[in-house]
Amino acid sequence: MNRPGKGTLVPDFAGLSAALQESADQMDAALERLLPVAAGLQGRVQEAMRYAVFAGGKRLRPFLMIQSAGLFGVPAERALRAAAAIECVHTYSLVHDDLPCMDDDDLRRGRPTTHKAFDEATAVLAGDALLTLAFEILAEVETHPSGEVRARLVSELARASGSNGMIGGQMIDIEAPNHAFGEDEVILLQRLKTGALFEFCCVAGPILAEAGAEHETRLRAYARDFGLVFQITDDLLDVLSTAEKTGKAVGKDADQGKATLVSLLGIERARERAEALANSASQLLTSYGEPAALLQALPVYLLNRER
Amino acid sequence: MNRPGKGTLVPDFAGLSAALQESADQMDAALERLLPVAAGLQGRVQEAMRYAVFAGGKRLRPFLMIQSAGLFGVPAERALRAAAAIECVHTYSLVHDDLPCMDDDDLRRGRPTTHKAFDEATAVLAGDALLTLAFEILAEVETHPSGEVRARLVSELARASGSNGMIGGQMIDIEAPNHAFGEDEVILLQRLKTGALFEFCCVAGPILAEAGAEHETRLRAYARDFGLVFQITDDLLDVLSTAEKTGKAVGKDADQGKATLVSLLGIERARERAEALANSASQLLTSYGEPAALLQALPVYLLNRER
Repeated sequence: MNRPGKGTLVPDFAGLSAALQESADQMDAALERLLPVAAGLQGRVQEAMRYAVFAGGKRLRPFLMIQSAGLFGVPAERALRAAAAIECVHTYSLVHDDLPCMDDDDLRRGRPTTHKAFDEATAVLAGDALLTLAFEILAEVETHPSGEVRARLVSELARASGSNGMIGGQMIDIEAPNHAFGEDEVILLQRLKTGALFEFCCVAGPILAEAGAEHETRLRAYARDFGLVFQITDDLLDVLSTAEKTGKAVGKDADQGKATLVSLLGIERARERAEALANSASQLLTSYGEPAALLQALPVYLLNRER
Repeated sequence: MNRPGKGTLVPDFAGLSAALQESADQMDAALERLLPVAAGLQGRVQEAMRYAVFAGGKRLRPFLMIQSAGLFGVPAERALRAAAAIECVHTYSLVHDDLPCMDDDDLRRGRPTTHKAFDEATAVLAGDALLTLAFEILAEVETHPSGEVRARLVSELARASGSNGMIGGQMIDIEAPNHAFGEDEVILLQRLKTGALFEFCCVAGPILAEAGAEHETRLRAYARDFGLVFQITDDLLDVLSTAEKTGKAVGKDADQGKATLVSLLGIERARERAEALANSASQLLTSYGEPAALLQALPVYLLNRER
């Protein structure tokens, strides 16, 4: 998987890898501050929130958010708070998706899922509390001095993660085995289930900077291309990788009869599509110059990652 | 249960009952507008949201919110939007509480709970989506022209319903059978599990009116007294009523060995406590004059209700 595709530039992967790690460390420190300390009789749910959040995730969404904020000179603390809110939403969605009544997964990143480490009731509540905390973080004045900006962030995150966003995508995903999805439905599913939150990650930068609609539109377009690259990469890994490398059951989607762009287009055409999208995403950001280099490299990096 | 307690004024219950019904009708109309219409492949989760929300609830929390807004001349549409957000949070909490891994209830208000009418996965997602929608509604400009006010509402609702509010209370409630709770713990449990949202209902009025800290403090104090009256009444009903009247298993709390103020103080002393709190709540609002009459009557009404 390490060879770059035809016509794809080879970006500075070592630099990107280091930047991802640095950003993840900053994110962990911010989350450490922002998550409630387990205390009192309700401490168990707060322990479960921390267990779920500090699970060794790559913090890809915070990276997108922090990089998009960096294009507009947003102060680090504000970007980190918005990124923390995103990671709370992402984590809650994993905790609930792993529940026995949903994907019924016992392991995530090689360790017990939250409902296995605690219990189902605590996992439901921890997910609920993480979702709630995301909005609390965004709404507080430390996120931005302007109430208009904070309310805008809340509104955008709620739309991205609501019944016509991420939750809607999860609903479609659950229903998927009952339908014969074509390319349009698979792309819609991806745009809702994972794409909407990626869009929020990227548009939160220009919103925090009050940079205006034109920048928001451009970052959203980048996020859409990025999201599809991310999904195709994930589907390719699902088909090609070994269980050892990804730490989860391989070919699970295919086993469940779920259509993916890879199953619909075939491996080679899906990879070509992803390469074209990675290039398109990169080109959308050329006007930002050097500060956009990492965002431009990221989709190609994903597509070439070993895991 | 219809006799008023010693020393308790008998308020205009017929007028209050009519006002509750009128407010519930207004709330239903607003929720009809604000909930997403079921559409597309994700329609199932939106159907489940509507099923849960339109379940014949009394809309007590919206009533508190609308009445508290009325003390300060808040325009009706703004109060209704804030009330709709509260009802979304309240409904989501019921949907998740009813799940098999939580209270495992098949019936609520005499009809199948959401996970019974749909399925567990859809119920989890519908709850998640209702919580998310609450913040979306509050953050939109129609709720208040000032972004500061909207962000404040989001922040207050998130705190009231988060891991140190309603969710924390639910966690304590789940843990309760493992502990020997005394009066302090029972009161803390109530303050978090149901009291925090009542406080938000009452403080949202002065927040929407930008009336200032003194009014917020007074309305919060009212909400605290009100919340305890509500809980004691509920516990009394649990002990005294027949299954037919409440539509749920009677004595369930007692069967589970959960301490309540009624089990700790006995029926008579618990009732006296509630009457004292109802009077105290009423006195807190005397300076608002006639516009506060319904809020003043409400705790006494609850304490004397047949169900």
